Amino acid sequence: MHSVRHLIDIALKEDIGPGDITTESLIAPERSGIGTILAKEPLIIAGLDVAGQVFEQLDPNVVFKPAYQDGDAVGIGDVVAQVEGKLRALLMGERTALNFLQRLAGIATHVRSYVEALGHSKVRLVDTRKTTPGWRVLEKYAVRVGGAYNHRMGLYDGVLIKDNHVAVCGGVKKAIERIRKQMTHLLKIEVEVSELYQVKEALDAGADVIMLDNMDIHQIRAALALIGGKAAVEVSGGITQSSLKHLADTGVDIISAGALTHAARCMDLSMRIEAVN
Amino acid sequence: MHSVRHLIDIALKEDIGPGDITTESLIAPERSGIGTILAKEPLIIAGLDVAGQVFEQLDPNVVFKPAYQDGDAVGIGDVVAQVEGKLRALLMGERTALNFLQRLAGIATHVRSYVEALGHSKVRLVDTRKTTPGWRVLEKYAVRVGGAYNHRMGLYDGVLIKDNHVAVCGGVKKAIERIRKQMTHLLKIEVEVSELYQVKEALDAGADVIMLDNMDIHQIRAALALIGGKAAVEVSGGITQSSLKHLADTGVDIISAGALTHAARCMDLSMRIEAVN
Amino acid sequence: MHSVRHLIDIALKEDIGPGDITTESLIAPERSGIGTILAKEPLIIAGLDVAGQVFEQLDPNVVFKPAYQDGDAVGIGDVVAQVEGKLRALLMGERTALNFLQRLAGIATHVRSYVEALGHSKVRLVDTRKTTPGWRVLEKYAVRVGGAYNHRMGLYDGVLIKDNHVAVCGGVKKAIERIRKQMTHLLKIEVEVSELYQVKEALDAGADVIMLDNMDIHQIRAALALIGGKAAVEVSGGITQSSLKHLADTGVDIISAGALTHAARCMDLSMRIEAVN
Amino acid sequence: MHSVRHLIDIALKEDIGPGDITTESLIAPERSGIGTILAKEPLIIAGLDVAGQVFEQLDPNVVFKPAYQDGDAVGIGDVVAQVEGKLRALLMGERTALNFLQRLAGIATHVRSYVEALGHSKVRLVDTRKTTPGWRVLEKYAVRVGGAYNHRMGLYDGVLIKDNHVAVCGGVKKAIERIRKQMTHLLKIEVEVSELYQVKEALDAGADVIMLDNMDIHQIRAALALIGGKAAVEVSGGITQSSLKHLADTGVDIISAGALTHAARCMDLSMRIEAVN
Amino acid sequence: MHSVRHLIDIALKEDIGPGDITTESLIAPERSGIGTILAKEPLIIAGLDVAGQVFEQLDPNVVFKPAYQDGDAVGIGDVVAQVEGKLRALLMGERTALNFLQRLAGIATHVRSYVEALGHSKVRLVDTRKTTPGWRVLEKYAVRVGGAYNHRMGLYDGVLIKDNHVAVCGGVKKAIERIRKQMTHLLKIEVEVSELYQVKEALDAGADVIMLDNMDIHQIRAALALIGGKAAVEVSGGITQSSLKHLADTGVDIISAGALTHAARCMDLSMRIEAVN
Amino acid sequence: MHSVRHLIDIALKEDIGPGDITTESLIAPERSGIGTILAKEPLIIAGLDVAGQVFEQLDPNVVFKPAYQDGDAVGIGDVVAQVEGKLRALLMGERTALNFLQRLAGIATHVRSYVEALGHSKVRLVDTRKTTPGWRVLEKYAVRVGGAYNHRMGLYDGVLIKDNHVAVCGGVKKAIERIRKQMTHLLKIEVEVSELYQVKEALDAGADVIMLDNMDIHQIRAALALIGGKAAVEVSGGITQSSLKHLADTGVDIISAGALTHAARCMDLSMRIEAVN
Repeated sequence: MHSVRHLIDIALKEDIGPGDITTESLIAPERSGIGTILAKEPLIIAGLDVAGQVFEQLDPNVVFKPAYQDGDAVGIGDVVAQVEGKLRALLMGERTALNFLQRLAGIATHVRSYVEALGHSKVRLVDTRKTTPGWRVLEKYAVRVGGAYNHRMGLYDGVLIKDNHVAVCGGVKKAIERIRKQMTHLLKIEVEVSELYQVKEALDAGADVIMLDNMDIHQIRAALALIGGKAAVEVSGGITQSSLKHLADTGVDIISAGALTHAARCMDLSMRIEAVN
Repeated sequence: MHSVRHLIDIALKEDIGPGDITTESLIAPERSGIGTILAKEPLIIAGLDVAGQVFEQLDPNVVFKPAYQDGDAVGIGDVVAQVEGKLRALLMGERTALNFLQRLAGIATHVRSYVEALGHSKVRLVDTRKTTPGWRVLEKYAVRVGGAYNHRMGLYDGVLIKDNHVAVCGGVKKAIERIRKQMTHLLKIEVEVSELYQVKEALDAGADVIMLDNMDIHQIRAALALIGGKAAVEVSGGITQSSLKHLADTGVDIISAGALTHAARCMDLSMRIEAVN
Repeated sequence: MHSVRHLIDIALKEDIGPGDITTESLIAPERSGIGTILAKEPLIIAGLDVAGQVFEQLDPNVVFKPAYQDGDAVGIGDVVAQVEGKLRALLMGERTALNFLQRLAGIATHVRSYVEALGHSKVRLVDTRKTTPGWRVLEKYAVRVGGAYNHRMGLYDGVLIKDNHVAVCGGVKKAIERIRKQMTHLLKIEVEVSELYQVKEALDAGADVIMLDNMDIHQIRAALALIGGKAAVEVSGGITQSSLKHLADTGVDIISAGALTHAARCMDLSMRIEAVN
Repeated sequence: MHSVRHLIDIALKEDIGPGDITTESLIAPERSGIGTILAKEPLIIAGLDVAGQVFEQLDPNVVFKPAYQDGDAVGIGDVVAQVEGKLRALLMGERTALNFLQRLAGIATHVRSYVEALGHSKVRLVDTRKTTPGWRVLEKYAVRVGGAYNHRMGLYDGVLIKDNHVAVCGGVKKAIERIRKQMTHLLKIEVEVSELYQVKEALDAGADVIMLDNMDIHQIRAALALIGGKAAVEVSGGITQSSLKHLADTGVDIISAGALTHAARCMDLSMRIEAVN
Repeated sequence: MHSVRHLIDIALKEDIGPGDITTESLIAPERSGIGTILAKEPLIIAGLDVAGQVFEQLDPNVVFKPAYQDGDAVGIGDVVAQVEGKLRALLMGERTALNFLQRLAGIATHVRSYVEALGHSKVRLVDTRKTTPGWRVLEKYAVRVGGAYNHRMGLYDGVLIKDNHVAVCGGVKKAIERIRKQMTHLLKIEVEVSELYQVKEALDAGADVIMLDNMDIHQIRAALALIGGKAAVEVSGGITQSSLKHLADTGVDIISAGALTHAARCMDLSMRIEAVN
Repeated sequence: MHSVRHLIDIALKEDIGPGDITTESLIAPERSGIGTILAKEPLIIAGLDVAGQVFEQLDPNVVFKPAYQDGDAVGIGDVVAQVEGKLRALLMGERTALNFLQRLAGIATHVRSYVEALGHSKVRLVDTRKTTPGWRVLEKYAVRVGGAYNHRMGLYDGVLIKDNHVAVCGGVKKAIERIRKQMTHLLKIEVEVSELYQVKEALDAGADVIMLDNMDIHQIRAALALIGGKAAVEVSGGITQSSLKHLADTGVDIISAGALTHAARCMDLSMRIEAVN
């Protein structure tokens, strides 16, 4: 995950710049220590590898020992990981490592609660492209850690004809036909619709997946009846944890929720550092 | 703001990769359009320049016309900005521009509510280093837009002796003395303490700023009495919107709150695109 | 196409390095001229934008005037484009621009001859990942210019279970089942098989596309009979211009040929430069 | 060879992007295997180090064991190298490694046939700047592996006054005189001429090397007589394998042929991967 | 020190480019040797780590053994360090390593002579921003090695209101007041003045540090009397080694001298290389 | 000059980092001004383009108006250039632009004095590779501005067999013979010798240029007699301004002096900034 290494690099540079003036004045370079990362609230942990890499990019001799695996539930006060190495690296990496963990664990924890709300439903809960710029790969990873699935990574690995495309293209049918000719044969064609007549157009044009955008439960049921299994059905727009189960029971195949990533709250973690020499 | 251009670049690359397969199949490169960015809830807008740059980095001929200035209050349904240019650039930049706006406006809106809770207090409300990795400069900017102040940008532009430094250094006094010798004469020395005896040590050693970490209101009062104006006083730890006013009334100089950045919720904005040819 | 700008940058650097010692010694920086790019054999032109960008990255004031569009047939001695600007930029960009054109036109010309060999067949002729490292986006573009289609761009935008995957996975069926669970719902699943029993396995496991690798015409016919329209069929391996039509007549849906990119011959083009002051 | 590492990096990124969705879904990260690279036609191998580096940049723990050295002749079906390491790295690097090998071995094989056509002639066969953009260093290396020599690497490490320079400079003599004054004393001056009167001008102006461009055998003989050993003589333009020996026998010192790099055909190699756990 | 690695990288690239044609022609890649770096005049050594990194960036297996520590006085003919490794790495890194050492030792030696001229004065001798572009971090490090202190690293980590700021801001007082409102609470405010009335203005506005620019000894004494300990006092402008002691005796707190970095002379060092196989 | 733009970028980043806190607090972004760059001592100006680029990279709308051309002699107090644009860009670029000018003008001025000391001698005075890491291209440019010539740019564009090469190669003759076989035909072969017997060896082996390293005037005369015009002769080592003329009179062809770059003193320039609104 090359791009993650790059983001860590940027994060360390923006925090440390030309030097940590406090630490470099106070701590001799040869001193070593142990850092202990603790959860200060119950959470689903995610991003342990990233946190470890933060320290390793500062000093390749740091040893990062996770006490859990990504996806595990961690209780309040639990030790999440230990970091052994030069004190300078521990002190200079602390905040950046925690900043990664707090957000990724935040997403995993948030997603897990959605997944549990769904119970044993066969519906596939997926994320969207409403992610933090620079964090796409990481946030989509945390979604999987939480137990949900990914929609496409970006604009390059999936066809999704959105409302704005339809508007400037002259209708659902035209859009689907034009795209089918040019698309590689490995991709399905998904189209976003907000009216029932568009569902019919999409079906006639042979869409593989139909996304019902911001429809209410009655419209969704009508759309499902119309589609009758001839295309996969995704619902999207204003999904909340409480509406999830209800939606799943309609029989849709996929529920996509931007909230999985953009509405997650940062978890509270801290790091305690002790010197060993 | 060189680093912002770099983050936008990364954001566009992670979203578009080698190409937006939907848009490039559907929309001829010469077609133009107008995009309208709308607020879908009341918010303090922030990041308009960044949103504009997203489109300009895709196509230097795009014209971005903000309808507000950063810091303005925007109502539900209000047009925040318009974007004119090639349809491809509008469609390919839409999500990334909104992803920047939703987070920056989120922080500005969140901070503004804190600032208003403080009323006319002379206390200085500041952020921390609990920011999204890669976003330090932008999130600190949004804090200022919201009406609060910045603590140091990173480890390089301010001395802050934290609990972990004190622990491995053998006490507050030793730490301050060691650092004073080496520090450039343009920097003040701040030290984090959690006990009253440390406040005294810090005072004796000549700290310029004393940060009272996670003290309750009684401890804070005792510390203020002890300090008696001989150093500036910052309180930190577990600050919430409701405790703010109370804290300010104790007479502390500075209140720092990680929540300003890490607990902000993304705002809801959308973009409607219409073709003009 | 960000990555193309990067490749041009690398190409100019490897050729010019710290300076064109001949040109900088001989030609005053203010002198201007006109360059004329000529075809020295009949060809399908491709890469005109790239050639123009080469000069523009050297000097943004150069004006590049193509006389044709990518995909046009150009005759021997025909003027392909003219370049106006500083003589130094013309002389320093000449070889690099021609090096791009000779390869891209080579691929487009080569592909066009394949496409013509297919006549009016409905089969879809596609490329592979056998491209020049660093040139993926450009060579796949030239394939489209020549009139054929693209297979996936890389490992990230299409699922293709190849022989080596099947080998280490314990069979076609296992592989398909495992992947279906994890894959985003926008992607089809293609599997490469070389034996008829694998075709059956693939069908049973619900493959969307079945690639028949290196089968002879009899095996292909048998496979098609077995599949009976329940999956799309791609043939691959040892495709030559002369076997194309024959293969297409079997009724397969897709023919993929690495030769489209790796066996193309560079076309012969030259550039004549005249001073105007 | 810093620039090679950079090209490999680009090549891996364009192929893998944010992830190999097939391999990452199918193969657990801890599984290991052995890859065997085979020649599918007789060839002169070149680029083994590069192929090894491809895998090592994916995973530093991969062990690459070449069975030959660059420049060796390899028979059909021969094992060229073995690669041991994680299955994911083998599967994700396979195509890129082969794409490097097929081109570099292609050039070395092609050049070797030219060198053999020359027999024991003392003439120096050299390449040109007609290389694949991005590949200058690698393709010139493959030329040496094949047994020929390199002309200058680029515009920065050799003076070559070409036809276009002469045209805009007002003649061969002026060009040589102007350049001699400014050039570092470590470089010879070569000038391209196409007419006998220019040969004389070049001689008079003291050119160190005279390149006879596109002259027929009679003109070449006349030029050689005129020069009489007072400058080194290079012939260029339309060199084919069959005309080589003939040209060499005229007594010229150097023959340069763009065909060495731009007309080489990719060799056919494949890689078989087996799991060991 | 990430930025140092980057500068070394640039330095190696500008010197070696696509290859050291002499060394690569003469020395087989497997040969090893020992390099001995010698001082050819008495000097204070600085930059040993940087010199070691030069060789390690060329070849991670090189072993660099310093015989001194940065800050040590080295006599003529003394061995400063030894380097063991491949001959190619030694020969290709030699000049670049020496070029770093000669400048950094030059600054350290120069600064040391200033520091010694000050004797036991309590005044703090500091550098300025008059450093070699690209070398800020390194040259400021060499200043500390020489025994002096650093002023701010750049424009981002210290407030210094200079003459040009005062001019365009409408006076010292306005400038100080405006900046105090916006500045983080960790920074002091320094202002540059050249007239006594400005000293008074600065004092009244509460400047923390007052820089007396290009004042003569009488003006400095008058300013000191006026300030009376209410702000720290820095003198700057035309400081020479001979005026130092005199200035220090006035009782100023800080003397800043651009000459520490920009007037240092490169020291003379050489490297002798012997083969071991 | 791509690499110069990169060095300017690094220089601006190291000085400005995330922001010029003084200027951004004091000066509104829309304010404009005029900067005047003045010489504070007589000098040969060099680097005007670079200084202009510094401001243009900060703000493309800045207009830089040089009052002289590189190479001109400028008197004390003379206006060297004017810069018009936003005040922020002027204030933030000032120091970096001056830091470039002071060093480049320093080299040009220093070199000019050497050139004048040579008078009308036909000898060619050249620089060496003893340049500031990161500044090779710029410092060699300043040497030419001063009126001297460049030796090779780096290790890639000229063959120079140095003492260390000879030592590990087993003698001058072996080295020359080995290199002649592999070298492109556009390069001359230079060898460094320090003893007369080596001069003879070099001659016999056909060296094109012989560098006499650290020989005294008698040895140089003896070497010249031995060589008798059969190779060009360069002297090097311990060249000072006063020994120049003497050396030139011996009849050597080239004198190389590291002092041209490494012993140049920075010139004194300043910039005055005035607001226009």
